[in-house]
Amino acid sequence: MPEYEAPLYARLIRRLERDPASFHVPGHQYGRTLPDDPFGVFKDIMGIDVTELEDTDDLHHPEGVIREAQQLAARCFGADETFFLAGGSTAGNLAMLLAVLDPGDAIIVQRNVHKSVLNGIALARARAIFVAPQIEPASHLPTVPAVSDVEAALGRYPDAKAVFLSTPNYYGMHVHLAPYAEIAHRRNVPLLVDEAHGAHFGLHPACPPSAMQSGADAAVQSTHKTLTALTMGAMLHVRRDRMPMDRLRRALAAVQSSSPSYPILASLDISRAMIEAHGPAWLESGIKAARRLGAALAARNGPFEVVEPVIGEACGAVDPLRVVLRDVSGTIGGFRLQRLLAEQGCWAEMADDRHVVLVFGPRASEADADKLADALSRIAADMPPVAAGHATIIASAACAFFPEERIGEPFAVQLMPPGEAETVSVPLGEAAGRIAAETVIPYPPGIPLLYIGERISQARIAAIGRLAAAGARFQGASDPNLRRIRVMAHQSSEKETVR
Amino acid sequence: MPEYEAPLYARLIRRLERDPASFHVPGHQYGRTLPDDPFGVFKDIMGIDVTELEDTDDLHHPEGVIREAQQLAARCFGADETFFLAGGSTAGNLAMLLAVLDPGDAIIVQRNVHKSVLNGIALARARAIFVAPQIEPASHLPTVPAVSDVEAALGRYPDAKAVFLSTPNYYGMHVHLAPYAEIAHRRNVPLLVDEAHGAHFGLHPACPPSAMQSGADAAVQSTHKTLTALTMGAMLHVRRDRMPMDRLRRALAAVQSSSPSYPILASLDISRAMIEAHGPAWLESGIKAARRLGAALAARNGPFEVVEPVIGEACGAVDPLRVVLRDVSGTIGGFRLQRLLAEQGCWAEMADDRHVVLVFGPRASEADADKLADALSRIAADMPPVAAGHATIIASAACAFFPEERIGEPFAVQLMPPGEAETVSVPLGEAAGRIAAETVIPYPPGIPLLYIGERISQARIAAIGRLAAAGARFQGASDPNLRRIRVMAHQSSEKETVR
Repeated sequence: MPEYEAPLYARLIRRLERDPASFHVPGHQYGRTLPDDPFGVFKDIMGIDVTELEDTDDLHHPEGVIREAQQLAARCFGADETFFLAGGSTAGNLAMLLAVLDPGDAIIVQRNVHKSVLNGIALARARAIFVAPQIEPASHLPTVPAVSDVEAALGRYPDAKAVFLSTPNYYGMHVHLAPYAEIAHRRNVPLLVDEAHGAHFGLHPACPPSAMQSGADAAVQSTHKTLTALTMGAMLHVRRDRMPMDRLRRALAAVQSSSPSYPILASLDISRAMIEAHGPAWLESGIKAARRLGAALAARNGPFEVVEPVIGEACGAVDPLRVVLRDVSGTIGGFRLQRLLAEQGCWAEMADDRHVVLVFGPRASEADADKLADALSRIAADMPPVAAGHATIIASAACAFFPEERIGEPFAVQLMPPGEAETVSVPLGEAAGRIAAETVIPYPPGIPLLYIGERISQARIAAIGRLAAAGARFQGASDPNLRRIRVMAHQSSEKETVR
Repeated sequence: MPEYEAPLYARLIRRLERDPASFHVPGHQYGRTLPDDPFGVFKDIMGIDVTELEDTDDLHHPEGVIREAQQLAARCFGADETFFLAGGSTAGNLAMLLAVLDPGDAIIVQRNVHKSVLNGIALARARAIFVAPQIEPASHLPTVPAVSDVEAALGRYPDAKAVFLSTPNYYGMHVHLAPYAEIAHRRNVPLLVDEAHGAHFGLHPACPPSAMQSGADAAVQSTHKTLTALTMGAMLHVRRDRMPMDRLRRALAAVQSSSPSYPILASLDISRAMIEAHGPAWLESGIKAARRLGAALAARNGPFEVVEPVIGEACGAVDPLRVVLRDVSGTIGGFRLQRLLAEQGCWAEMADDRHVVLVFGPRASEADADKLADALSRIAADMPPVAAGHATIIASAACAFFPEERIGEPFAVQLMPPGEAETVSVPLGEAAGRIAAETVIPYPPGIPLLYIGERISQARIAAIGRLAAAGARFQGASDPNLRRIRVMAHQSSEKETVR
């Protein structure tokens, strides 16, 4: 085991060794007097589950070991400043947006983002200018908007305060961010990146470069997702030039618990320490395991294949720790395959109609890959004779995804849904010019075609019609076939900000 | 050990026993392949640190074990519905406020609240009508506004959407909430309570009744503070009649991580299960330990005493698990006493100029009390001869706390500080009628006298003068002596909401 330096973790262990008496919160008081049934699995962690004490620093005003741990992380991940997050990437996304946006401000944002990004824009009472993503051709899955579309959006809305992108996507598809940073910086606005699924990027030659390495001004990483932190442990990395640091600090303190979890914070510290102590070798075993699974499936020539994205503008690189599976024949959809794998004791990360997404941890083993390959063989043996599926056909239709208007008009994203009294249902064909009162998300491809508050164009109506004709489903829509749509009874989409 | 029912905890343990293979986040994958150095203390908890899987339910759309666990909690704590919080009481306070307030709405709120309450009002872009707290006479510490003042505020601002109170205070002083619920309900607005320090209330005959038992419509409790959850584990209890439940669910999903920590959620489940399995006996040992400390100090007749609040309108009851200490002579202030105790291995919760606050967990032992009493004896033995302190005199001056205007005007609480260019420094005497650009908090008593955005009255200026003359300090003020004050360059305090 190489030497490692993890000051926050070390402080918590050292103070525990001195057998302190707790007259402070939390009330479990290091778990010492609690019965093993049911507290057994919690006892070790309760020993370091402390609060802000004289020697444990304060996440919201760090001057001691937390500051030191954050500085080591900033150095490791190439940031001017790194903030530990105990509230997950959600907290980082909310804070980034609240820091750069005043009410009424506009921001250029990729249409297919995590809901925390929408919530951040809504809480800031700002206006989103959504830009449609590109589609990766082999999978028909959405990635990131084209550079030219982001540039056009900046040209059309020169008052926009920032550009917000999300990459890699859930399927491990990534774009190179340097050109986006360049066009944002030419307009002197920050590039903010939700890099939740890419905490390990830039740490191994097989990984794409990280957002920070590519010139982003701020990037959120879910350290718990692909490194070794406890769940909710994430980091926000920042370059200072274009980010209002005081506002960012305030926003972080506003959206995160005033009693953050020390075990989560300490797990961030040691996750970073392992990377520095071991170097790229820390990810070697997990990358090998993921490759081994791909090789095993190719060799068996069975019905399951690993999706290989086309490397190009829509997908410049792929995550080596993520494997996207699909049944070549289309017989077994993604949701069913996920369930069959779970029955074999193999729990996948996510499924859609067509695909199953597997996440390999940095320390995953070859045995894990073999267990999964064997489970797939058993599932294949039980499969009915091949029948042609139609999932691919539906997904292909999504490629005709409203090309007419890839850049939307700015509008206020709503945190709260409009009340029943404020909305009406109209036939889709008569909705042009109205403000949407429901979010319309066709599956596939899962990109929101309309957000609540967005003005409905004729082109958008046509796109909905094309997708519906191709067999797409509209989950959660008031009319699942989208022959009718709920719109605002009144015409303004800016009610909240002008009130 | 009595039988107990903890469905979420039981599910996580049972699935771990089946030895599942993880191809999902978190990347530590149950910690199985991680080295003991440094992951040893994390390994047990990593076994149950999972994500939303088919059998683990989803906090933001609970339909399985999380729903079941929350329903058991609702029954135990007397709520119509209980929400588990993985983001601490902070998340509960933010969500309650976002659920009931639209931009521009007014809310009646106790002046001395936790910063998360201010942040919630700020994020909602609502307007706060602050009501001054009462002062407990034995300690000169602020508690909750008088019932008559809250009633007067509701009369003066009949459009207010809710009443927000915070009790017990940090020192364990509590008021009976039933009369407040009654006057709020007479106006048909909800009573919202930050009960972060009272998670154990109503669970033992020695404890005051809980907010839910007293008729509150929503109450947030830090289960981690005074019961046995992991830090950040809290609960929001709700009575449905006056609360917009859909909005509340949306607000909770917006302010909390989309990947909440299962260990934290499971610790909430077993914290509740222990209460139901053991009944009041679960708190007996901690309450006895706290009493034993009080008895020991009284018997020793040393310089340290336990503060005994005057039971009356300002403080109707006290928390039996909290002990507030002070040096009778005033020789050793609170901060110094806290440091001296830490040197003896006894870590207190909090200190102010005069007091040290000790929190006893429900399972604290008599040995803990003895260790603390012994540490105090050793500190007393080393004390210099008694010299008269003046802390009491300063605190007394705070009793003359702006009685002229206990109910403020509504104003928009700012999430972000005004920029330098938007503020000017003026002599305090010339500030009447201006809008404060800094928050003024005199210590003692620690009640904010002016918030950023609040209009400065002549009476408030006089109060600042009286407190400064009595020796109060103004931490963080641009002029620590408050001879000058920063005010907005422009007169409107409503900039953000009218923009």
